[in-house]
Amino acid sequence: MSSTDFTSELRSRPESAFVAAAGLIVDEATGTRVTGHIELSADHFTPWGVVHGGVYTTAVESAASIGASAAVADRGQFAVGVHNGTDFLRSSTGGDRALVVAEPLQQGRVQQLWLVTITSEQTGKTLARGQVRLQNVPLPA
Amino acid sequence: MSSTDFTSELRSRPESAFVAAAGLIVDEATGTRVTGHIELSADHFTPWGVVHGGVYTTAVESAASIGASAAVADRGQFAVGVHNGTDFLRSSTGGDRALVVAEPLQQGRVQQLWLVTITSEQTGKTLARGQVRLQNVPLPA
Amino acid sequence: MSSTDFTSELRSRPESAFVAAAGLIVDEATGTRVTGHIELSADHFTPWGVVHGGVYTTAVESAASIGASAAVADRGQFAVGVHNGTDFLRSSTGGDRALVVAEPLQQGRVQQLWLVTITSEQTGKTLARGQVRLQNVPLPA
Amino acid sequence: MSSTDFTSELRSRPESAFVAAAGLIVDEATGTRVTGHIELSADHFTPWGVVHGGVYTTAVESAASIGASAAVADRGQFAVGVHNGTDFLRSSTGGDRALVVAEPLQQGRVQQLWLVTITSEQTGKTLARGQVRLQNVPLPA
Repeated sequence: MSSTDFTSELRSRPESAFVAAAGLIVDEATGTRVTGHIELSADHFTPWGVVHGGVYTTAVESAASIGASAAVADRGQFAVGVHNGTDFLRSSTGGDRALVVAEPLQQGRVQQLWLVTITSEQTGKTLARGQVRLQNVPLPA
Repeated sequence: MSSTDFTSELRSRPESAFVAAAGLIVDEATGTRVTGHIELSADHFTPWGVVHGGVYTTAVESAASIGASAAVADRGQFAVGVHNGTDFLRSSTGGDRALVVAEPLQQGRVQQLWLVTITSEQTGKTLARGQVRLQNVPLPA
Repeated sequence: MSSTDFTSELRSRPESAFVAAAGLIVDEATGTRVTGHIELSADHFTPWGVVHGGVYTTAVESAASIGASAAVADRGQFAVGVHNGTDFLRSSTGGDRALVVAEPLQQGRVQQLWLVTITSEQTGKTLARGQVRLQNVPLPA
Repeated sequence: MSSTDFTSELRSRPESAFVAAAGLIVDEATGTRVTGHIELSADHFTPWGVVHGGVYTTAVESAASIGASAAVADRGQFAVGVHNGTDFLRSSTGGDRALVVAEPLQQGRVQQLWLVTITSEQTGKTLARGQVRLQNVPLPA
């Protein structure tokens, strides 16, 4: 499946309420690179008025899963996360666009490891970065 | 602040769209234990039709942050996550209640480490488990 | 292979200099539990005079690998670590015995996840705890 | 303290048996970069005849601790690891030099986060990579 096909197919599927609220817009999705962005706002806040860490962990999980699944789509597989480790480097109070870039650190027959960095467009500084380990599994029939 | 006070205050704050969509209902919140639940459904799905890993990482982050913040509220502090490491043990296709339990592994002057387990009410099996490392910081004035 | 056989076979293999210096003495090794101990001393120190974190990460790695390998030995497999995540909870200046206990959190066909806790015998407090994710692979012919 | 001073002082301290067996030779140590190497050999093996994962986690821990401690030495502090998360990407059967490079991802007042990559000199491929989170603490008087 070409990267254009994969991105298109992904976009054609309805988003769940959770995925919509998490707010990641995928700009490009291939088996070796996924980029996207999030418009950070009060919609993403914790009760303490900063962007919830789960917004970042979820973007990390989504971006890595999309890329890793794109990488094995031709084999009739997709990739499921088994571990997500995300570090929070700076907090955000919204009004900023977060840029998300995912790239593989390792792509094996059975497993993949992806690194995802999330950067403030405004400041150029890293907000969060995470690694996801994924297992390649058969697509549901 | 008593645990009842803390839970009440938490409930009195408006939930952001992201926190609402993530679906964690906090049942009890003290500085040494937080419990809650999520009604897993299609609202939480990835494009591949299973519960998104971000639902679990977000519940892990929320539960640990609430507990760790409760623990230091009396000192005029709250706790912000610096690392969230979550393992996904079993996938779910919804129609199940996930039980969330958070407990501290370490509570220091500067840092805390919490363990959060997420279990299927139906099967009793662990769906995910995560650790969050948090830093104690002054409450905004 | 019975647990006694596995422990015996393990003990019959020569230890490398690194494994010997790391100092983990395995007391019991089965596919669902590994226990051991380390006599912490100046032999394990960093240049700053405390036990090196690598002594704990190495014990975590060893104990998990031994248990996970025992679990799949009957299938002609052993288990290799793919991720080791260890938290250091208290520092030690030696003169203490560290008790090591490893137990599985998940044992799948392809992967295993083990939790290892390291406790001071003297104080009963946790010094470190780590999780190792392992992949089951065929034994070398 | 200048970087030359720090490296010199480090070298002047006696190495413990564990640190010696782990085999990391530090080539350069500053508060923003640490490099070193390990001559991988049978001295580093597990009972299964490959380099022990603990050799990598220990190098990750050492390199990050040395760099992070160099970074705060002027403040009368050093840095102690609180979490070490290391991924093992390729196994080694020795006869190779492993190149170790550590660089900070974040350097705060209270905490630091360092990334350490370990590469085979022979193949240029990554053997392992790890992140260490450290806390800045006062030097012992």
